[in-house]
Amino acid sequence: MLEELTIQQKIKYLQDTLYVISGKWKLLILMSMYGGTCRFRELQRSVEGITTRVLSKELKELEVNKLIERKIDNTYPVLITYQLTPYSFSLKPMVDEMITWGAQHRKELSKP
Amino acid sequence: MLEELTIQQKIKYLQDTLYVISGKWKLLILMSMYGGTCRFRELQRSVEGITTRVLSKELKELEVNKLIERKIDNTYPVLITYQLTPYSFSLKPMVDEMITWGAQHRKELSKP
Repeated sequence: MLEELTIQQKIKYLQDTLYVISGKWKLLILMSMYGGTCRFRELQRSVEGITTRVLSKELKELEVNKLIERKIDNTYPVLITYQLTPYSFSLKPMVDEMITWGAQHRKELSKP
Repeated sequence: MLEELTIQQKIKYLQDTLYVISGKWKLLILMSMYGGTCRFRELQRSVEGITTRVLSKELKELEVNKLIERKIDNTYPVLITYQLTPYSFSLKPMVDEMITWGAQHRKELSKP
């Protein structure tokens, strides 16, 4: 598939992906939801350093991009939980490559 | 390799990669250098919308991460050119996955 794309198309699709995963939080939020359904506070604790305002903004953007689902249980008080969508697993090949590259990049930079 | 990593290690390596490619410009700069050696002004023209200040900052960071090389020809006036390092091609599997994901994400979002 990639061979048929022009450089402009490649750049456009790359920009799309960068836009969706941009910033230092989104992929970390997704990874910390890997274990299953999470509440807001649980997410906030597992993603070190993220503020309430930023977490709610990132969750909204992840939801718009169909990567997470928000569930509201009509309990008292209301219970709001978040979970990965099946679609979010389409990110796995890319995230695995990013992890693999990050691991070897540390070694590369420590070379003289 | 990935299976042996803990979730913390995965997050650490992912953060490393995100740090190196972060922002909307770095990968676009690298892609526009794919054709060969470039001068600063050529790069600035081919990466739409980037300012001189931002381009020089991004080039420095790419150089520190061993992804590009800066060559200075002792001509009059001095000629400064930039080119990809062989090491930068280690990004290809990841960038290909990002392009592939971006292409299918457009289709996914256009579904009802």
